[in-house]
Amino acid sequence: MKKPSFKIIGITLKPNSTPEFYNLLPNLCAWLLRRKKQVVFREEDKERVHKFFKQKSTEGLEFWNSKNFHNKVDMMFSLGGDGTLIGACRRINTKIPVLGINLGRLGFITEFNKNEYFDLLANIMEGKYETTTKPLFHVSISKKGEEHFSDYFFNDAVLAKNDIARMIYLRAEMGHEHIYNLAGDGIIISSPMGSTAYSMAAGGPIVHPDVKGLVLTPICPHSLIHRPFVVPDTAPIQLKILPPHHSVTLTLDGQVAINVDDQDVVTINGSKVKKITLIKNPERLYFETIRDKFVFSKKD
Amino acid sequence: MKKPSFKIIGITLKPNSTPEFYNLLPNLCAWLLRRKKQVVFREEDKERVHKFFKQKSTEGLEFWNSKNFHNKVDMMFSLGGDGTLIGACRRINTKIPVLGINLGRLGFITEFNKNEYFDLLANIMEGKYETTTKPLFHVSISKKGEEHFSDYFFNDAVLAKNDIARMIYLRAEMGHEHIYNLAGDGIIISSPMGSTAYSMAAGGPIVHPDVKGLVLTPICPHSLIHRPFVVPDTAPIQLKILPPHHSVTLTLDGQVAINVDDQDVVTINGSKVKKITLIKNPERLYFETIRDKFVFSKKD
Amino acid sequence: MKKPSFKIIGITLKPNSTPEFYNLLPNLCAWLLRRKKQVVFREEDKERVHKFFKQKSTEGLEFWNSKNFHNKVDMMFSLGGDGTLIGACRRINTKIPVLGINLGRLGFITEFNKNEYFDLLANIMEGKYETTTKPLFHVSISKKGEEHFSDYFFNDAVLAKNDIARMIYLRAEMGHEHIYNLAGDGIIISSPMGSTAYSMAAGGPIVHPDVKGLVLTPICPHSLIHRPFVVPDTAPIQLKILPPHHSVTLTLDGQVAINVDDQDVVTINGSKVKKITLIKNPERLYFETIRDKFVFSKKD
Amino acid sequence: MKKPSFKIIGITLKPNSTPEFYNLLPNLCAWLLRRKKQVVFREEDKERVHKFFKQKSTEGLEFWNSKNFHNKVDMMFSLGGDGTLIGACRRINTKIPVLGINLGRLGFITEFNKNEYFDLLANIMEGKYETTTKPLFHVSISKKGEEHFSDYFFNDAVLAKNDIARMIYLRAEMGHEHIYNLAGDGIIISSPMGSTAYSMAAGGPIVHPDVKGLVLTPICPHSLIHRPFVVPDTAPIQLKILPPHHSVTLTLDGQVAINVDDQDVVTINGSKVKKITLIKNPERLYFETIRDKFVFSKKD
Repeated sequence: MKKPSFKIIGITLKPNSTPEFYNLLPNLCAWLLRRKKQVVFREEDKERVHKFFKQKSTEGLEFWNSKNFHNKVDMMFSLGGDGTLIGACRRINTKIPVLGINLGRLGFITEFNKNEYFDLLANIMEGKYETTTKPLFHVSISKKGEEHFSDYFFNDAVLAKNDIARMIYLRAEMGHEHIYNLAGDGIIISSPMGSTAYSMAAGGPIVHPDVKGLVLTPICPHSLIHRPFVVPDTAPIQLKILPPHHSVTLTLDGQVAINVDDQDVVTINGSKVKKITLIKNPERLYFETIRDKFVFSKKD
Repeated sequence: MKKPSFKIIGITLKPNSTPEFYNLLPNLCAWLLRRKKQVVFREEDKERVHKFFKQKSTEGLEFWNSKNFHNKVDMMFSLGGDGTLIGACRRINTKIPVLGINLGRLGFITEFNKNEYFDLLANIMEGKYETTTKPLFHVSISKKGEEHFSDYFFNDAVLAKNDIARMIYLRAEMGHEHIYNLAGDGIIISSPMGSTAYSMAAGGPIVHPDVKGLVLTPICPHSLIHRPFVVPDTAPIQLKILPPHHSVTLTLDGQVAINVDDQDVVTINGSKVKKITLIKNPERLYFETIRDKFVFSKKD
Repeated sequence: MKKPSFKIIGITLKPNSTPEFYNLLPNLCAWLLRRKKQVVFREEDKERVHKFFKQKSTEGLEFWNSKNFHNKVDMMFSLGGDGTLIGACRRINTKIPVLGINLGRLGFITEFNKNEYFDLLANIMEGKYETTTKPLFHVSISKKGEEHFSDYFFNDAVLAKNDIARMIYLRAEMGHEHIYNLAGDGIIISSPMGSTAYSMAAGGPIVHPDVKGLVLTPICPHSLIHRPFVVPDTAPIQLKILPPHHSVTLTLDGQVAINVDDQDVVTINGSKVKKITLIKNPERLYFETIRDKFVFSKKD
Repeated sequence: MKKPSFKIIGITLKPNSTPEFYNLLPNLCAWLLRRKKQVVFREEDKERVHKFFKQKSTEGLEFWNSKNFHNKVDMMFSLGGDGTLIGACRRINTKIPVLGINLGRLGFITEFNKNEYFDLLANIMEGKYETTTKPLFHVSISKKGEEHFSDYFFNDAVLAKNDIARMIYLRAEMGHEHIYNLAGDGIIISSPMGSTAYSMAAGGPIVHPDVKGLVLTPICPHSLIHRPFVVPDTAPIQLKILPPHHSVTLTLDGQVAINVDDQDVVTINGSKVKKITLIKNPERLYFETIRDKFVFSKKD
């Protein structure tokens, strides 16, 4: 089904500049401007964009503040790896579709690679594309019942020790049922999309994105009995720090980090989700991506 | 909510007799007969039942053929381990509720243990109980599109080599998408309930029974890249034997075994389920069972 | 250091013929005969060798019985995979050096691949080569103290169930100390060389060939607490079948299989070794082989 | 064989005070003083010792500086867990035998538990005991060939990321042979004694203390192909940080931590060992300890 075509195009750049930007960026912008699109960057990327364009004209490019940028464009390009895309999705209005072009090492969510996307671009600009929605899971921290932190994750929420030498002790619950206590480096609560990221490194299973579940993967548990656990994504999972208390950090998608105190309760609520919209690469199949990435360690 | 009370009570016995039967069985039957219940065994258990009763009177006990036994009782006791219960569930009319009393080693599905069930029995007989339904997943074998075998599993379908010395080669697909090829001892397709059985032994994750998924767990894969995979239980999974062909067996719940030829396609269809009805133990919590069984290796 | 040059050259062929033999075998024999070597095959390979030579002359080739073949040649080529080489090493006089040319899938012990060995052959024939010795570990089965089976393994001794549906129960001891009891599919006792074969598939660590140890790797243990165990190769390891007894098979290197009864004791004695002599490929490095085989799944 | 009896007895206390000290310490000291032993603590423990004695007399107790304490006693008690014992062993003259009394959670090296040691004490004081020596492995850091750090570890040397969000890249070599490159949280180089500590938590095998080897266990490797590796303890292992460089810390036995820069080379040299002397518990068997600790999670 044909969708309305896009007028205002936002472009998010990965934080670390790569040589690839010098070619790819002027070409992409020229292509879009020729088709009478409005091309918009974040204000904070203005200086870098001018650098990438060197002598080339940047006429027609616009630079907006973060609020407008994440709410008033018609679609957004994310140029970078999965991290860049996830970062953009955390801030963007969930109605705006995002197209990820992979410039990083492993592109799982970033479905287009930098060599193939141009062929598909004309169609996409004209509204011939499919989208998929992916959940951002809600996570909060509360102390004595008062919530004092609230955010979302796409891949994973990691509760882990800060201090190299010490292990931490956790109590995990689902609903009000006690799952287990855990002594070790920490625990990963991963979405299916995140199951091939840090959770897999810690020994977790691969979970297909259509499974409605979350994975609890212990990090270096000091016990032989702990196994990765797949639980429904509807009941809230609660994590509590047990004594003796050490410095513990909650990290969301490896991008947001916050200290957790000993009376804090971390709640992951799979039923409180925000759904972001991604433009699908019609040539990408899920299992093929898995095979490509892990068997041959292919880099796009 | 109160349900209609039971009149006709079937009793299935585990195939291997245990000393426990000599006490438990006469006591249970006497208790039921006093309450004017009709107590029914399978014809094939007649000789054993008499043996267990020794001098005690077996008056009032009935012995029915398998067809009547599995279709015309109001509820059924399964006395044995999870295997006995699963065996009964494969044959019973899915409307008839089953109550499992655990006499085996590890009771996961068999929710009542032999010391605690008596207290709950009076209530249950009067219709004060809760039930839960659990899926039996459909599995079939076809050759050149013709289905020539069809059955169900509760815990797992295992496709594995027969011959000690050789590994087998498999191709796994979901829908019509290629998942991976596998060289090794075989593969386990496990339900969430079966995830704590053979799949766990082969390195699979624990999957909560409320997750709508199936686990693909390779058995001794001759490759470092294979990981357990959790997939939705709605799309059919197809398994094909690749050359060089060796002797391969499909086993369902460790109870039904059938040879698989090189042109056979094994299809597990999570959307074709039969739902059996189990009487719940109100005092059993899922995670508590997991902890009891695996942390302390408690035997009921 | 230069060693005495070889006069009589034995050639062992892998049991399953491959197209590669049609080229490789006539070329190798011609090369050897031109250099006045005596070229010897096993009598049982006579028909196959003639087939591989097609119209070409087989004049000068000799066919000896197994006893002479494995004791009176000066060196031996093994043409095949690791299995072929191991099979030859089980029978050959341990003084005779063996050179493995890999025609199989994964060549770990078979150090030469079929494309590179010719360059090195002239030197080797003239005595310019290095050898390495590798242990064959002794394994025996005894009943009530009487040994009734005795053999050796290179890679691994596997004690495993025959019957798909049942698990077996084992007791493992080292010296007279109880290691653990195990319920599951079986156990692998692996040499360091074998650690990258079946033991690795079952989750075992990679052990460098210079480590004096044996790996005990459980196969699908029905318990969360079992881990692979590396023990010294000097103390005898004893394995006993525990009740309930099921059909159990001992397999050596996937080549020799024997049934084990319930009163049998299987003893692996790392201090009773036979040392075989292999000709080293000077261009092969251990870790490079590991990387090649497992990272890139390279096939020679 | 009877050994010379001890005159001067040192007592090392675990850094965190436990209630157990209030009973155990006055009793132990009184027992020793009655037998005319000289009882010595570290100067820094003076205040705590007086606290533990409450009203009881501390007459006869001596408090020495660290240098004298670790060199001039005849034997030493370590009261605490494995960490306390390892800390003492790092500083003590290797000739002085150490007896570990376990007050901690898991006592692997600390062979005596607080309930059983008193029975054995009379014999030990009279010289009737056996000792065992255990290696401390040498680890050094050098930059451009210049060594700028040097120390020992008993259990493990851990090279790991500091920063929660980032993975690090390492190159591991043995001798001058390249083992592999690793992307992940870090790597553990573990002694056999340490194989049941952090290495096991990260998925490493259990290695018997008589095996002459070191275990390389990757921590959450971002790749499916990495497996724990057991290598001989004679060749030096070298670890190098690869770009992009992140903050990396080397930790020895969880007690000593030092930052590692991007041009630093960390060398673990198994052939440069210091051997410490431990008093053995004649009633402790290795595999029994393993079973006790991991199967039943027994706490002494």
